[in-house]
Amino acid sequence: MTEGLDLDAILTEIAGDMAREEDRGKVADYIPGLAGVDPRHFGIAVVLADGTMHVAGDADVPFSIQSISKVFALTIALGKVGDQLWRRVGHEPSGSAFNSIVQLEAEHGIPRNPFINAGAIVVSDVILGGSRPTEAVGEILRFTRHLASDEGIRIDEDVAQGEKETGFRNMALANYMRAFGNLDHAAEDVLQVYFHQCALSMTCRQLAMAGRYLMAGGAHPDTGHNVVSALRARRINALMMMCGHYDGSGEFSFRVGMPGKSGVGGGILAVVPGVASLAVWSPGLNDRGNSQLGALALQQLAVATGWSVLNPR
Amino acid sequence: MTEGLDLDAILTEIAGDMAREEDRGKVADYIPGLAGVDPRHFGIAVVLADGTMHVAGDADVPFSIQSISKVFALTIALGKVGDQLWRRVGHEPSGSAFNSIVQLEAEHGIPRNPFINAGAIVVSDVILGGSRPTEAVGEILRFTRHLASDEGIRIDEDVAQGEKETGFRNMALANYMRAFGNLDHAAEDVLQVYFHQCALSMTCRQLAMAGRYLMAGGAHPDTGHNVVSALRARRINALMMMCGHYDGSGEFSFRVGMPGKSGVGGGILAVVPGVASLAVWSPGLNDRGNSQLGALALQQLAVATGWSVLNPR
Amino acid sequence: MTEGLDLDAILTEIAGDMAREEDRGKVADYIPGLAGVDPRHFGIAVVLADGTMHVAGDADVPFSIQSISKVFALTIALGKVGDQLWRRVGHEPSGSAFNSIVQLEAEHGIPRNPFINAGAIVVSDVILGGSRPTEAVGEILRFTRHLASDEGIRIDEDVAQGEKETGFRNMALANYMRAFGNLDHAAEDVLQVYFHQCALSMTCRQLAMAGRYLMAGGAHPDTGHNVVSALRARRINALMMMCGHYDGSGEFSFRVGMPGKSGVGGGILAVVPGVASLAVWSPGLNDRGNSQLGALALQQLAVATGWSVLNPR
Amino acid sequence: MTEGLDLDAILTEIAGDMAREEDRGKVADYIPGLAGVDPRHFGIAVVLADGTMHVAGDADVPFSIQSISKVFALTIALGKVGDQLWRRVGHEPSGSAFNSIVQLEAEHGIPRNPFINAGAIVVSDVILGGSRPTEAVGEILRFTRHLASDEGIRIDEDVAQGEKETGFRNMALANYMRAFGNLDHAAEDVLQVYFHQCALSMTCRQLAMAGRYLMAGGAHPDTGHNVVSALRARRINALMMMCGHYDGSGEFSFRVGMPGKSGVGGGILAVVPGVASLAVWSPGLNDRGNSQLGALALQQLAVATGWSVLNPR
Repeated sequence: MTEGLDLDAILTEIAGDMAREEDRGKVADYIPGLAGVDPRHFGIAVVLADGTMHVAGDADVPFSIQSISKVFALTIALGKVGDQLWRRVGHEPSGSAFNSIVQLEAEHGIPRNPFINAGAIVVSDVILGGSRPTEAVGEILRFTRHLASDEGIRIDEDVAQGEKETGFRNMALANYMRAFGNLDHAAEDVLQVYFHQCALSMTCRQLAMAGRYLMAGGAHPDTGHNVVSALRARRINALMMMCGHYDGSGEFSFRVGMPGKSGVGGGILAVVPGVASLAVWSPGLNDRGNSQLGALALQQLAVATGWSVLNPR
Repeated sequence: MTEGLDLDAILTEIAGDMAREEDRGKVADYIPGLAGVDPRHFGIAVVLADGTMHVAGDADVPFSIQSISKVFALTIALGKVGDQLWRRVGHEPSGSAFNSIVQLEAEHGIPRNPFINAGAIVVSDVILGGSRPTEAVGEILRFTRHLASDEGIRIDEDVAQGEKETGFRNMALANYMRAFGNLDHAAEDVLQVYFHQCALSMTCRQLAMAGRYLMAGGAHPDTGHNVVSALRARRINALMMMCGHYDGSGEFSFRVGMPGKSGVGGGILAVVPGVASLAVWSPGLNDRGNSQLGALALQQLAVATGWSVLNPR
Repeated sequence: MTEGLDLDAILTEIAGDMAREEDRGKVADYIPGLAGVDPRHFGIAVVLADGTMHVAGDADVPFSIQSISKVFALTIALGKVGDQLWRRVGHEPSGSAFNSIVQLEAEHGIPRNPFINAGAIVVSDVILGGSRPTEAVGEILRFTRHLASDEGIRIDEDVAQGEKETGFRNMALANYMRAFGNLDHAAEDVLQVYFHQCALSMTCRQLAMAGRYLMAGGAHPDTGHNVVSALRARRINALMMMCGHYDGSGEFSFRVGMPGKSGVGGGILAVVPGVASLAVWSPGLNDRGNSQLGALALQQLAVATGWSVLNPR
Repeated sequence: MTEGLDLDAILTEIAGDMAREEDRGKVADYIPGLAGVDPRHFGIAVVLADGTMHVAGDADVPFSIQSISKVFALTIALGKVGDQLWRRVGHEPSGSAFNSIVQLEAEHGIPRNPFINAGAIVVSDVILGGSRPTEAVGEILRFTRHLASDEGIRIDEDVAQGEKETGFRNMALANYMRAFGNLDHAAEDVLQVYFHQCALSMTCRQLAMAGRYLMAGGAHPDTGHNVVSALRARRINALMMMCGHYDGSGEFSFRVGMPGKSGVGGGILAVVPGVASLAVWSPGLNDRGNSQLGALALQQLAVATGWSVLNPR
């Protein structure tokens, strides 16, 4: 699916088009560490199955990946407890955003999926296991560096602290699940893990690299070893497809048609199994909390390349 | 993706496995015309991109396709009003089943997507247009016959009448949307179209044939003409992927990983773009109203063939 | 509690104050027959336990009593089926207005109380019994005339027809309950009864007269016979107190402290057991659909007379 | 309303009837300090406006008043910030119990009323003011002793600690409101106040004494000074009437017809303004979390005395 494509030209054109866009959405401002980011940034990076990397724009500027980290955390948790995880968190889309705590109540503390906040908090609880929070955070960092084959990835402590100071809603969710018996550790400890994981700071290039195992049926391209089995990689892709953009997941599937996961830092990781791992970043968000230009750029890329998983292959 | 596959052997094995399954789910009993169906039926049919047909089990026994008809009706409505349809119906998963009328209230009479009942009723309202109900029903029947290249497809009038007699919930939804100004015609007329569309009676073979345009990027294999554009075909596939199994859509994506649409008659239409159009039927339903053995058979098929759209291609 | 009170002076002062109010709320406009009413109207009528009538303002101008009729309809239905009614409708406040159809879904078609629309439709279904709609409407009209000892009360057919033409939401509620098995008759027939009952046209004087049995422990002051038992009268008063003003019931209790029932025509019937039956009317509604000046006038009256049931007696 | 009543005989008969009841409900077991209480207890105490005290059963056995304390806490908070309190908490019934966190979300962190947990937590936040939690707890204890003119009232520290250890849901509510800006202090501090207030241990006799100001139009019978104004006393009574029994408030009003407040310790405080202050206790709860025999005893008392505020006076 990549023969005859001049991917560098396509990415350069997309970056140019995005630079001219005036409606860039609104930068998240509820965390001090995110609020100061310049909305004019745009970066994109694509790793193909043959290992070649193609970039345009600010592909080497680090940004806060926020909820995109939930993909990596889910992968770790599945490695720890396997399919038993699905007793504690579902794999259905959540409907609309405002429903999160409603559904948590109606469904007795079982979050809808691992990509809404409540579900990601359960995943953090699993990763915490018998460790101390700092150890669990270290494990997540090491795992992400391993996925991307890049030791330069770090956690932005300012962002992590900023979340701790304003994360009352997440504290509410954690305590609420604890009331239902679906949290094993103290809410403070679990959220320490969760907030640090969300504060992972990565470039588009690093993020696209980290996503390669989902392109490659679960295998790590640099080692050939499986990060996860092919079946589990397919299922993680399914979760990204169904639930990766909160209540904008249907819109993303409709417009782009790839499994993808967005974060309020303005990043999106998307995967075309067998073909490419993609990362895009533009800080301004649309009204559903997903990167406005990020989605637009991927939509344009999907048309130019025909890479939607819902197209004939 | 079909080289080296002995599809006939795979289908025969699946049909044999399904015949031995004891937990077959529960046949829908709220419509007299459905209640009497023998739960031991199982049929499967696969049309490949090269036009070859492979079947096993009761692939030539007609059944009531029910909500699967919403795919064909959506296709007709998009042909009539184009993307203006999306002003009246969304394209997001609906969350959980019990939410349907809740969300309709919260979102001012705009159904979440065209595959929940409320959304399909809006689609019927669009198809009705300036016609009489019987004319609109005729149009849907002719269109489905055209898709399948099969003049033998018919509507089961007993089933259609059975729905009219017990369809109070659909009458409620229709009137509720009319209260919000999102229904142009009298509820009775719209539901007459809707109930007849749901009463389409088809075999697995006919249904797989009718789904070919979604496998083929919108083109009708027998004429080469576009039923819809490639982009629209991709989007219909996206809607099937995200919303095709009500609040079991995430589960179907997780287990099978294909765009699919189920009906309470026990049928499922699934599509692997570029590869195959599949129809499966077993009347017993799981607790989310989707064919229990149908989903199991497709899960087995996905593993045997690797056809999930979320696998490397 | 009436000794030493110059009630005529109090009512005249209230009427004068209300005439000077500029913020009069908004006249209901969803029914043609209501939309044209002059918002400057204000009337009040008080019948004391000794039978004396005191009025001020437009106490003899008829208006559409709308939901106030639900009190009289409930009284008839209790006479027909007794406490078995409470198997089909609850007696709890409904929370907020927008919840109505939500709760109907969560509680399997059992409306929260007989004063929300869904509950009143169940009551109409009970009254309809084995009769034809026109007979049931006649029974309600005769009963209301009997309560008020006034043969001049009539039903405004224009208002009744206006509701039929726009009552899609009520049609939705009726069909929804029918889907749950909580409606015995065809929705059209039940709503014919319901719409005509709501179209009762009465003056403040007539309405205060009709409410006397709830002041008098269930007895009809003109005959001495019981309309209902003392216990049932107390319970109807309890329902008016808890649920008489939709999601403004708490506010009305907080400010006025009397059992009362409002209607979107701008009327309120209130009762001080043992002391007085009161009716007030001003067409403009507040944002919860209750008469803005009506509630204000009763609040002023409660302070001037000390008649709240929550004051020391 | 008390002339000719042999109240002692009535109470003795009620206590006897209650002793013979076999279906006594279920003792709350989520707090260790409550779980061990013997379900055979029953006590009742009535103080009349003339100051006479009438008791039967275990009227001198202390029990945990739990949510009944919300009435006294509300009274303190109104004294501190007056009607500004109503900007932070509403005065409408909450609908059904499971709605609490739903409505908190829909209504942007403003609890429905001060008697649901979320509302009472806001009240605790107001009482905390600039003090330390232990000072605020001391203030509540002193105020309650003052109301009852009884220095023997104390707080059960075991019960307070037990709530702290299992109060994840309250921690969730507090953090959730903090996310909406409707909590000024740290959740831990506010809940320390709240948990200690709920752990007030009182006898029926003490509780009936403490409720006298609500019987007496706001005045303290022993001093003649106003605890609150007459208008405010009436409004607190209105809140008890509308919201005092969670989603069983309508049922209590329907059956008993007095302002009342229940607690999960099995106590109920009820008031007949101008007539009596009543306390009843039996530890077993009905399915809505209100004392099963307590409500039954008050229903019997209401019939025997005619004291419902919804009866003719």
